[in-house]
Amino acid sequence: MLETTMAAIRPLDEQAMAAAADVQRRLTKPAGSLGVLEDLSVRLAGLAGACPPPLPEPAAVAVFAGDHGVHAQGVTPWPQEVTAQMIGNFLAGGAVVNAFARQAGATVTVVDVGVATPPAPVEAPPSGASTAGAAGPRLVEANVRRGTRDLSVTAALTRDEARAAVETGIRVAGELVDAGAAVLLTGDMGIGNTTPAAALIAAFAGADPAAVTGRGTGVDDQTYQRKIEVVRTALRRHEPDPADPLGVLATVGGLEHAALAGLILGAAARRVPVLLDGVIAGSAALAAAAFVPSATDAMVAGHRSVEPGATVALRRLGLTPLVDLGLRLGEGTGALLALPVVAGAVRVLHEVATFDSAGVAEK
Amino acid sequence: MLETTMAAIRPLDEQAMAAAADVQRRLTKPAGSLGVLEDLSVRLAGLAGACPPPLPEPAAVAVFAGDHGVHAQGVTPWPQEVTAQMIGNFLAGGAVVNAFARQAGATVTVVDVGVATPPAPVEAPPSGASTAGAAGPRLVEANVRRGTRDLSVTAALTRDEARAAVETGIRVAGELVDAGAAVLLTGDMGIGNTTPAAALIAAFAGADPAAVTGRGTGVDDQTYQRKIEVVRTALRRHEPDPADPLGVLATVGGLEHAALAGLILGAAARRVPVLLDGVIAGSAALAAAAFVPSATDAMVAGHRSVEPGATVALRRLGLTPLVDLGLRLGEGTGALLALPVVAGAVRVLHEVATFDSAGVAEK
Repeated sequence: MLETTMAAIRPLDEQAMAAAADVQRRLTKPAGSLGVLEDLSVRLAGLAGACPPPLPEPAAVAVFAGDHGVHAQGVTPWPQEVTAQMIGNFLAGGAVVNAFARQAGATVTVVDVGVATPPAPVEAPPSGASTAGAAGPRLVEANVRRGTRDLSVTAALTRDEARAAVETGIRVAGELVDAGAAVLLTGDMGIGNTTPAAALIAAFAGADPAAVTGRGTGVDDQTYQRKIEVVRTALRRHEPDPADPLGVLATVGGLEHAALAGLILGAAARRVPVLLDGVIAGSAALAAAAFVPSATDAMVAGHRSVEPGATVALRRLGLTPLVDLGLRLGEGTGALLALPVVAGAVRVLHEVATFDSAGVAEK
Repeated sequence: MLETTMAAIRPLDEQAMAAAADVQRRLTKPAGSLGVLEDLSVRLAGLAGACPPPLPEPAAVAVFAGDHGVHAQGVTPWPQEVTAQMIGNFLAGGAVVNAFARQAGATVTVVDVGVATPPAPVEAPPSGASTAGAAGPRLVEANVRRGTRDLSVTAALTRDEARAAVETGIRVAGELVDAGAAVLLTGDMGIGNTTPAAALIAAFAGADPAAVTGRGTGVDDQTYQRKIEVVRTALRRHEPDPADPLGVLATVGGLEHAALAGLILGAAARRVPVLLDGVIAGSAALAAAAFVPSATDAMVAGHRSVEPGATVALRRLGLTPLVDLGLRLGEGTGALLALPVVAGAVRVLHEVATFDSAGVAEK
């Protein structure tokens, strides 16, 4: 499935892009006055192979959840059980990703691709958290293994496990697009998952661990130094080859990172844009681009995470984030806040009058 | 009315802010992980005097339109008639502000506070531009005079005219809030209006004209130099006193700028947040803050306009824009793109579960 998906990823449609650029010039606004929204609309026309491209509605957030053997190294103050507990919170509609998804009219699909303990039973949504307008959150059980091995000691995954996670992401992308999603948003949950993200970014971008390792959801100075050393140790031990993305994902990655790489490849193959959240998405996007460079054509960087690795990854991918709000939560929250910008960019091509049709003089 | 409104503006409610900060710490996310959204939610609680503050729904964009005598100096390549023609486009639902407002579920109120020629007759909305979900755009006739005088030659307005425009803005704010608006967004239309905006910002911020004058909707090098000289001439001629905001608005301002200052004061007096668009809003916000410094508590900077004066104004006001997308269109478009961020910030306080209620462990 991975090879078929990779082979299906094609370049942007130049003709649709030229058509979109031409429409932008004729709309009732000064040329270029919508800044990055104009460029984005042109690229999305190229991705869809149509001008205007479809509005990114409905939107679907896929939250891939996994645990990490490297948790044993003390890289985070949060207990590992929080991963499974937060899945319960997602399914009950009580997390920030749920609140933002309700606001944006997006569905939330939680995928257990590697949680250590089976997710807690689903509780009723808290009061005030109406899911009107969109189907409630749902769980996809696709556990490849119950947490990775400790990447600072041994390979986090076998190649087969990494491939299974990537193919889970591809399958979820296909199912969401088949169900009507016009844009996919990356989400993640996994206590400790900024450590493998840093290792992946260091491996793919050839960066120093200290330049791509951050404080995640909040670690003190001592833990931060330990985290950098753990990433350094993992890279020294495995010497991952960036030309072998499956090998990189297996040795220093995580199951949610691998699955997100698959989601991105799946979106690119289906010519649907994929809105990237933070540093976990950035590391997965580097993996996807290592599989197929033109997969970046389908990527839209949602926000600039506080994590330094996110900025390194986006720079490497040539992407500029749409919003920069000091977020470091994950779950897909930053991608959701950027979704209205993507929708606005496309909507302009659908709805705005031309100088000619509106009887407005030009300069 | 101006004096009553000024007197009604009170400081933020410290108790509501403390309550909001406390709720933020108990929600199921790492403390601080929502970055600027957390600070914003706390401030909006202080403005509303309640925790949680009301969701910013429904939202209302007020687009104040005016013309400018300084147009005669060749500060823009666009013909003056475009102001009135664009009002027709707004009312027909064909402009970018309409597309973004439909997406955000916001109403659009166009206020003729100073257009040179009566607005063109309203046409039917173009196909595809459904106004479902929100009332269609409406026009408020409140013309103070048919365009300002040329500020490089004489005072743009009399003090009475400037006051009438400010009070128009206050009245519109009151009407929109009475009609249920929970947030106001600033919009503007006026060919040539970045020239008075630059003069206002230079006057209030004590900045050099070259540092605050931009290329507006697109002027060539020669026009740009002329525009800077026009601003310089106006400031030399009038020597506006920043401690006398009505005098500044009268000598080097515009009718839409003055009305927007009134809208901001009106919002602050009603304790409703006002989301600022670009450089015209920035200049009006400086005027509002000169009338009442604590009016800034009600201001949320929507986006960072490409116009250099916008950044100078926001810095002076101590505001950081929510999005930075290279926009230079005006109309309220940048404020509308930032609205979901404001809504998301408040929604978190309404809908997200606490660690306790969701049964999630803390670090």
